[in-house]
Amino acid sequence: MRHFDLEMNDLKKKLVDMASLVQEMIKISVDEIVKRDESLSKEVFIREREANLTEIIVDDTCLKLIALNQPVGADLRFITSAMKINSDLERMGDEAVNICEIGLNLLKYPELKPLIDIPKMASAVTIMVKDSIESFNLSDAELANTVLTKDDEVDELKRIVFKDLLQFMTNTSDQTTLSRAVDLMLIAKSLERLGDHATNIAEDVIFMVHGKDIRHIKSI
Amino acid sequence: MRHFDLEMNDLKKKLVDMASLVQEMIKISVDEIVKRDESLSKEVFIREREANLTEIIVDDTCLKLIALNQPVGADLRFITSAMKINSDLERMGDEAVNICEIGLNLLKYPELKPLIDIPKMASAVTIMVKDSIESFNLSDAELANTVLTKDDEVDELKRIVFKDLLQFMTNTSDQTTLSRAVDLMLIAKSLERLGDHATNIAEDVIFMVHGKDIRHIKSI
Repeated sequence: MRHFDLEMNDLKKKLVDMASLVQEMIKISVDEIVKRDESLSKEVFIREREANLTEIIVDDTCLKLIALNQPVGADLRFITSAMKINSDLERMGDEAVNICEIGLNLLKYPELKPLIDIPKMASAVTIMVKDSIESFNLSDAELANTVLTKDDEVDELKRIVFKDLLQFMTNTSDQTTLSRAVDLMLIAKSLERLGDHATNIAEDVIFMVHGKDIRHIKSI
Repeated sequence: MRHFDLEMNDLKKKLVDMASLVQEMIKISVDEIVKRDESLSKEVFIREREANLTEIIVDDTCLKLIALNQPVGADLRFITSAMKINSDLERMGDEAVNICEIGLNLLKYPELKPLIDIPKMASAVTIMVKDSIESFNLSDAELANTVLTKDDEVDELKRIVFKDLLQFMTNTSDQTTLSRAVDLMLIAKSLERLGDHATNIAEDVIFMVHGKDIRHIKSI
């Protein structure tokens, strides 16, 4: 295997590791809320530092790969896609931190009510994240395409969560109860955004594989 | 001037134009709500299509610049930063569309109450966006640094908007009133996110100028 190919494999591995880290962050931050275990938050914060560091390393690796090897075509697309995916992954980590911080606030009070469809949203988003990275790892545009479809499902779940919470809010004038309902809405919003990032990654993978820009088109 | 330099200038111009477009989208979407003029929404949608198209053109320009000129050092950093800024700008356009769509919903009902600090938040964010692009255009890392400072101000305004709206929500059990208060919260959230994107751009500019990655450090 050429030295360049080894380095490209190493870059791919770094990104897949970064993605695992971010998947863990999402899982732990949702667990914190579902299990009402605030000690989990520090697990998220530890991984955030690691994700931030990895982002910088991956970016630096990409710049060096371009500068030293002057790639063109599919190789160049792979590297620039890696830079974009890297940036999405880091922002996904930020969303997990967001969820985790709102969770810490929520855990100060008794449970509001069953978390309605939030765990369901979290499961759907987790599949999107997993599949988007898997599609990158395998250069599988078909799998990437399933991620785009799944995004509609997440958006619909968010709509239902908002509707249910709004209904719930009409039955109280207690400020901490209202505040907790708003917090759950913000968590749903963060989950929706995680789905959007997974969609961005999937679109990058399709571009990387086909050299065709499908952003702003609903499906290929 | 070398052919390559002309092409780099052209890339810079394309991005600055894209930024103007996005600034217009933000301004119009906030005006729609402040002036209660739903006809403005179509102005936002027209510009969204243009921004989506420009994003693809800028990305393509960047890939060709790398493939045909094999730049290194500052030139390579400029091009990869341009790709990242391009992506942030497009997502800022999406946030403006978001604000605009929530606005359309709000305008179905009478005005909830004065918009509290939302117009103030919008002004602060507009300055951040303007300065982040100006700092890119002038390769001015110092100006980029002021954007990072301003982000704290926007976050604080968002906190106040949320607090005021929550207070307001305790005095009603009417579902459409609650729904409008939630909509205003979501608009504040979108404005906060616009500030985050401007911060990302400012960080990219600092990296581009100094070759130093300052992400995840509060200030240089």
